[in-house]
Amino acid sequence: MEAEIAGNQLGQFYGPVDKRDKGTPDSWVSRHPELIRLTGRHPFNCEPTPKLLEEAASRFQGLTPSSLHYVRNHGPVPKLSWDTHKLEIGGMVKNPIELSMAELQKLPTCSIPVTLNCAGNRRKEQNMIKKSKGFSWGPCAVSTAVWSGVLLSDLLKLCGPLEGAQWVNFEGSDELPQGKYGTSLDINYAMSNVNDVLIAFGMNGELLSPDHGFPIRVLIPGFIGGRMVKWLKKIEVSSKESDSYYHYRDNRVLPPPVVDSVTAEEWWTKPEYIINDRNINSAILYPRHDQSFPIDPDKSINFKGYAYNGSGQKIIRVELSLDGGNSWKMANFKYGSPKGPRHGTKYWCWFLWTIKIPIKEIASSSEVCLRAWDCCQNTQPSQPTWNYLGMMNNPWYRVKFHQRDGEIVMEHPTDMLTGKGWMVRDYQERNKPKEEAVKSSLKSFTAAEVAKHNKEDDCWVIISGKVYDLSKFIKVHPGGKKAILIVAGQDATEDFEAIHGDGPKASKEKYCIGVVSGKANL
Amino acid sequence: MEAEIAGNQLGQFYGPVDKRDKGTPDSWVSRHPELIRLTGRHPFNCEPTPKLLEEAASRFQGLTPSSLHYVRNHGPVPKLSWDTHKLEIGGMVKNPIELSMAELQKLPTCSIPVTLNCAGNRRKEQNMIKKSKGFSWGPCAVSTAVWSGVLLSDLLKLCGPLEGAQWVNFEGSDELPQGKYGTSLDINYAMSNVNDVLIAFGMNGELLSPDHGFPIRVLIPGFIGGRMVKWLKKIEVSSKESDSYYHYRDNRVLPPPVVDSVTAEEWWTKPEYIINDRNINSAILYPRHDQSFPIDPDKSINFKGYAYNGSGQKIIRVELSLDGGNSWKMANFKYGSPKGPRHGTKYWCWFLWTIKIPIKEIASSSEVCLRAWDCCQNTQPSQPTWNYLGMMNNPWYRVKFHQRDGEIVMEHPTDMLTGKGWMVRDYQERNKPKEEAVKSSLKSFTAAEVAKHNKEDDCWVIISGKVYDLSKFIKVHPGGKKAILIVAGQDATEDFEAIHGDGPKASKEKYCIGVVSGKANL
Repeated sequence: MEAEIAGNQLGQFYGPVDKRDKGTPDSWVSRHPELIRLTGRHPFNCEPTPKLLEEAASRFQGLTPSSLHYVRNHGPVPKLSWDTHKLEIGGMVKNPIELSMAELQKLPTCSIPVTLNCAGNRRKEQNMIKKSKGFSWGPCAVSTAVWSGVLLSDLLKLCGPLEGAQWVNFEGSDELPQGKYGTSLDINYAMSNVNDVLIAFGMNGELLSPDHGFPIRVLIPGFIGGRMVKWLKKIEVSSKESDSYYHYRDNRVLPPPVVDSVTAEEWWTKPEYIINDRNINSAILYPRHDQSFPIDPDKSINFKGYAYNGSGQKIIRVELSLDGGNSWKMANFKYGSPKGPRHGTKYWCWFLWTIKIPIKEIASSSEVCLRAWDCCQNTQPSQPTWNYLGMMNNPWYRVKFHQRDGEIVMEHPTDMLTGKGWMVRDYQERNKPKEEAVKSSLKSFTAAEVAKHNKEDDCWVIISGKVYDLSKFIKVHPGGKKAILIVAGQDATEDFEAIHGDGPKASKEKYCIGVVSGKANL
Repeated sequence: MEAEIAGNQLGQFYGPVDKRDKGTPDSWVSRHPELIRLTGRHPFNCEPTPKLLEEAASRFQGLTPSSLHYVRNHGPVPKLSWDTHKLEIGGMVKNPIELSMAELQKLPTCSIPVTLNCAGNRRKEQNMIKKSKGFSWGPCAVSTAVWSGVLLSDLLKLCGPLEGAQWVNFEGSDELPQGKYGTSLDINYAMSNVNDVLIAFGMNGELLSPDHGFPIRVLIPGFIGGRMVKWLKKIEVSSKESDSYYHYRDNRVLPPPVVDSVTAEEWWTKPEYIINDRNINSAILYPRHDQSFPIDPDKSINFKGYAYNGSGQKIIRVELSLDGGNSWKMANFKYGSPKGPRHGTKYWCWFLWTIKIPIKEIASSSEVCLRAWDCCQNTQPSQPTWNYLGMMNNPWYRVKFHQRDGEIVMEHPTDMLTGKGWMVRDYQERNKPKEEAVKSSLKSFTAAEVAKHNKEDDCWVIISGKVYDLSKFIKVHPGGKKAILIVAGQDATEDFEAIHGDGPKASKEKYCIGVVSGKANL
């Protein structure tokens, strides 16, 4: 069965480099042109459209082609070589080793279908309640692939962890503003015979693509993507957790008292707030945002989507409600993996569901809500709980129905293709008066005027509809000149928002010289 | 540390047999007199009071004394002997074995603190929405003890499961109306090196008490109690699941289309609806129902309670809200086990929490809501989802505040000591007109009159305020004469409700001869 789904059909995208990547450090990386780019041109963060994700899953036994798999990069993709890259395993072990990729591949390997998701999947919904520190993902920061590699437990047994070892610390090869990307895994978890932690070199039957960690990455089934270090260079067995900035300062759900960077400060290192295993989540992929259907009382709409869970725990029910949760219809669903569960009980992949709902029922409802249940009888909450990093958003997925010209029109909470959605609409309505008051007091420029200021010594950018003169600041930018130069004269909203915290967000205002005429880019 | 908490202090109750057990098949079993009996006199099902549970946990490092541990029995307690009882292990194994208790105890043993709960914990809240098929438990069908025994995986390795084995089927020694109590565990789960499945012979440093499965029982940390067969007689390794009535017809969460015994019929054997791992749950144990506090603006109330979870997944936050969930206060909490987690990451015990809330805040609120979060970022739902067996009820635990004579009075959703609570009040208000209409048309008897009809050939009982003449029916009762005779002339509501389904509930009406004067027993 694996042979069927392997090969180019599910492989990397071999097309030319996208023009948006020209002039960035990733100008050598091929990427599928239809991926939705979420953080401007660089670093590269993308999700597939709901249509691409859903149609690929139907066609390929639940899998997502590598070229359509969501990507989360924190910086430039490291340019590594299969022939020279080495994996070091050391620290508290009897026999530290260094393995070439050829040596690694000679060890016993296995192939496991696994659904990965970003902890920020569906974050745009959180950002439409109140801006979080993270950039906006739609509901497609989730994908499923067959990953091939060597079990981490086998590698660790080769090295022999010493008494007192508690953590397995991973470090990537990427050079980021705050150092190397690194994170940690409890050694008991790593050594378990049912957790299937892999050092992966293959994805859907091919070697990893650059965006997915070539030549090797960590793969921890059921965990959020942020723990699966890409471009893996070093594994250190230790009595202490990784000290990487990215281990502590990202992928945490900080609790309700944390509302801004000041209140966040004391919470980063508390072990309760790390995210490892993911929560239950689900979304509707079809019908899509803005799709419309004639109100034909004899017809139905075939709703489709996904549901996933952490810890390998099975999804046991997927339900939809047309009356705000008073009554529920059960969807049909199946395990979205070309193989069964691992070890009889570990469901590492998503479940794909469908349900036919008669149009006459939809016509007398204003909204459909979706929730999934797992085998522990846990389910998704009806309402979101906002958190500072906007992580792990998983309330009931709600699509609103509108009637217009004899048709029913679907409105998702957010839509990453059009920038619309009912939560976006709510957000804009709430914030309009405030934004307008600020902007009406500022000088106005056209985008064409701004575009002329595109050089190092004359550098303007647009962020959220406002114009900033960064000609002086560019020399002292902590992230370097190049990061600003690639957006000089352009709208840098996504690039800026994606990687800056509250500090830069506040301090940039001293460089504001006006607003751009026309619509604000929210 | 274990030595400290062992011994009589946490041991069995050695007092005389309770007078309520006289005349029942359990007339030889010592039981703590303060346990709340939930299903009348027989079979024995009980939970401790919130006060006993909470105070014991504070005093004994999170543990519950054996004599206060909740009990779920389906029938008479089997009278077994340590010296003659044997455990058979057979089926699809290379070497079937039979072990005496002495032989079992000679194998390597371990002691593990584990919180057990009944899948019906908090079911009375479900029954106050609409009567489910299960009897009412309050929020104390949960207890924590140190269990000692032999790892099931060690026993199975001794026997050598054969290729194709998928299930480990357990069978108890009890003789029940529908046969032996039995259930099944996936063999992969049983063999895992981190799941800690025990064949237990010890509880809090003593041998098991009769109510807890003497001489041996199954113990599956993180699972609901219903999978932990007591008075264990036989382990069968098989390619098929147990065919016990109790494996299929109990401990399932049937989905929304199931509303009665007719619609339930086709759902019992579907694997999605079995309950094994428990869900996240939490409750307030202090302040208790009906406790009152002067409205002193300088004072606080120190709320206390528990939170637990399945799968060994850690509880990471316990929160209370005074404004219906708009904002949340974080409680202090600690792992309620005398030891740390197993294997570094497996939290098999509950967490105990406390939080001081100023009385002036309580005085301006009408309700406190409680919810817990686990390390997967799953949480409890705000509202319950009713299900046919009333299982796994885990919505936010809500205590209402009332002001009366300058004091704040606490009203829990249900209180098993007084039979009161705000959900009980709601239920009675909804059902009053219906009940009254039926009863006003019937003849009225006093309890004293009913009490005279207490013999086999002249046998009346009271069920939910109505009087039934069972003099003819007693001869054909499927559960035998004795079960009815022990309640003849008495209020048999709890005894009846506990073990009868919709069929008997409907058909008993043909024996109704009137109502008992005075208050209905709901």
